[in-house]
Order: sequence, then structure tokens, then C-alpha cells
Amino acid sequence: MNIPKSHPRFVSLSIREKIVKGYDNGLVAKEGLLAHGRGEAFDYLIGEKTTNTARAAINAAASALLSAHSPVISVNGNVASLCPKEIIQLAKITKAKIEVNLFYYDEHRKKSIAKSLKKAGAKQVLGTNPKSYRRISGLDSSRRIVDRDGIFAGDVILVPLEDGDRTAALKRAGKTVITFDLNPLSRTSQTADITIVDNIVRGMKLLVSSCKKSKRKRSNFNNKKALASALSEIKNNLKRRTSIA
Amino acid sequence: MNIPKSHPRFVSLSIREKIVKGYDNGLVAKEGLLAHGRGEAFDYLIGEKTTNTARAAINAAASALLSAHSPVISVNGNVASLCPKEIIQLAKITKAKIEVNLFYYDEHRKKSIAKSLKKAGAKQVLGTNPKSYRRISGLDSSRRIVDRDGIFAGDVILVPLEDGDRTAALKRAGKTVITFDLNPLSRTSQTADITIVDNIVRGMKLLVSSCKKSKRKRSNFNNKKALASALSEIKNNLKRRTSIA
Repeated sequence: MNIPKSHPRFVSLSIREKIVKGYDNGLVAKEGLLAHGRGEAFDYLIGEKTTNTARAAINAAASALLSAHSPVISVNGNVASLCPKEIIQLAKITKAKIEVNLFYYDEHRKKSIAKSLKKAGAKQVLGTNPKSYRRISGLDSSRRIVDRDGIFAGDVILVPLEDGDRTAALKRAGKTVITFDLNPLSRTSQTADITIVDNIVRGMKLLVSSCKKSKRKRSNFNNKKALASALSEIKNNLKRRTSIA
Repeated sequence: MNIPKSHPRFVSLSIREKIVKGYDNGLVAKEGLLAHGRGEAFDYLIGEKTTNTARAAINAAASALLSAHSPVISVNGNVASLCPKEIIQLAKITKAKIEVNLFYYDEHRKKSIAKSLKKAGAKQVLGTNPKSYRRISGLDSSRRIVDRDGIFAGDVILVPLEDGDRTAALKRAGKTVITFDLNPLSRTSQTADITIVDNIVRGMKLLVSSCKKSKRKRSNFNNKKALASALSEIKNNLKRRTSIA
């Protein structure tokens, strides 16, 4: 589809095309298309721009990643389709490992994602070698597999667009969890240590810049307060739109 | 996927399965999966239940359909996958025509939808015979085609899950437009005469019941007021959830 730049929803439609392309290339699951749709709705509600609360969360995430002992970036099909270059830049700056980790388990899709990331410039992508598979507790069979050299050994894990159960399992395993989630009420948002309530396409770029500037300084970020503030931003945005409508 | 009934998101996941099945059967477009995801987010925001405002809109829609001269129900892939039986019941009670009408034009998909509706019990399904194609103005080529015996001649048109441009074109053509749309701020919601802000799976059942009870009584429904009230319900729901979180 050829979207004219003048279309009022040009940016959102261009991002959607990346996901559809990812689906066509075997990276994204059908359920990933649905999940992206949910994200579109929440992005619409925050006004399709990075809020001040999200900026604070991004800076806190940069500090946590830079001061980690072994940071890991968990990548699924949607993440790999939406911001592959930023993932690779972030891994380089923070010395983080990249691990493919899927909610809808599929060996073939895992390999396609790893291949696409390598094509985009990633040196190493974990998560596709069965010899390195380890299990984290509290999840059903296929969903608990992680890589021995990646999430299993990591201390600070960035899991963008993750599921609530898996976020909780990572927390129980003692990890510091950073996530991107546009729904401030989701279980993932509520369970993570740092939730970036932003569109990953905008937010990942900012996270890379923040890591470039950051000097491992400690931030005193409060996720509960930040989520309450993200909700207020949605409510204010709804109020503003109501008065325009 | 086998979803246990105890799963906190059982109903939403079961509905999602209908859409995915519709996609697998060639009724739903990829973009339809994304659109359904957006709907899930807004349903979540209204509390995944039919609000009082939606009930009032449903009753107004029942009156409008029962007093129509030639009512038409426009069906796309998502509608056909989510509530085929209710569409057929509604057509029977209100003596409405059923017309397949797609945003993402595809002759083959049109035919698959018509076939699936006939299999579910529909006697006649319009919109697939090129000899009956007519054009409504103000839309680009493939999107303006409607059936001579259906939407073209109809006075009250139910277009659930419709696009904003097409809703506006139907209004300009002098039709009374009823829609289902979970986003009270969408152009479709704002343009239609009666917007039912509800999940179509819940709302269509209620619309059928309402038509069974209704006696063509005139209702004084105000769509602008109803949409403002739907927005308040979302804001109140967010407030309630914030205090629980």
C-alpha cells in the first residue's frame, strides 16, 4: 500500500506496514498483528507522542542497563520487525546480549528472527541453540525456555512487548525487568521494575540516545508513580479530545 | 489453542480465536486482525461489558431498523467471523438485506464471506454480482462500489466496524447510518447517526433481542451526547482501575 505523507495517520500506518511486512516475512505471529492493534489504540490514547513520564522511564532504563553486570535484550517478532537497528545499537552501547524469545513458541520463526537480526548487523543472537536451553520456573513447558548464556544468566533484562506471566516469572527469578508496554494497566506494566509507556518505535530511539549520554548514574525511579502518571496523561488526553470533538 | 475457562481473559481470547479462524478461512484481512486488536484495547477500557449508554444506542438502532423502508446490513470479514448467526437473525426480524462490503477490496474474499453466511443460514447475500454494482460518490475507485439492490437503494444502513471515509460517504448519500465502534472518538463514531460503543459479539445479540421486543416506537436518541457519555465511562473506568492498581 502506498500511503501519502499527507495522510493524517501516516506515521501510524507506516509503522503498521512494518508489522505486516514482518508477518509476511515469517517474523510476526498472527497474534502479533492483534497485539500491535491493541498497541495502536493505546498509542492513540497517549496522543501518539512520547510523554514526559515515558522520558523519565527511558532515562531510568538507560541507567539500569549501563550499570548491569550482564544485560540482555529479549526480542520477539514484533520487536524485530519494528526496530531492529535500534536493538543492535543498544546492544552495542550497553554490551547487552540479544536473545530471541517468543510467547507463541515456534523454532522456525525463532530462526527467521535471528537471521533477520544478523542481516541487520547483529554479531550474536542467542536463543536458537537447543544445547543452551535452560528453564525458568513458574511457566508452562514451551514458555519457560531461555538461553543459558542470555536471560538465564542475566541480571537486567529488557523485555519489550512481553506477556504478564513471563514478566512475573523473570521477577521471581530475581531479575531486574525493563519493559515497553503502551497499556499502563497491563500485568506486564504493573510487574516490571521499569515500564516505558511508549511506542517502541519512538522510545527505542530515545533509549539509544539516553544510553549514549548516560554515565551509569543511579536514578530514583518509582514505577508505580510513573504508571499512575501515565494513566493521568491518558485521562487528560481523553478530556482534551472530548472538548474538541 | 486450548484456552482454559478459568483464564482471566477467557472471553476475550475466545473472541480472538474467532477472528484468527476467520483469517485462516480467508474471510478476514491481515488489517482486520490489527483492527480487532484495536477493538480489544477499547473494550478493555470500557470494562468489557455493555454500558448503559450502549444499551440506549442499541434500542435506538432497533427502532430505526424496524421503521426503515429498506434496511441493509453491511458485512465485512470481521463481522462475518464474529457474529454470523446474529446477522442472519437480525436480517430476518427487520427484513433487512445483507450485503458484503469490504474496505480492503478483494473479490475472492467477498465470495468467501458470502459463502460462509449462506452456510450459516442466510437466504440472500448481496454485493458479489458485478452486474449489480453501483457507485457512491466521494470515495476512491474500489471503495465506492455498493450493490444496486442493497446499500445503493437502502435508507437505513447498519455498517458495523466501518471506516470513517465510507461512513461519511453514506451520510452524504442521505442514508441513516448505524454503526458498532468501540472507539467513541473515531471518525466513524462521530459521523454515524447512531453509534453503538460496544463489542459486536455482545451488542449484536442485544440488538436482536431489542428488535424482537421493539414496536417501531420513535426514540429520541442523541448520538453526540451518547458519545460524550461513552467517553465519561472510559474515564471513570480508568479512574476506578487506577485506584485498584
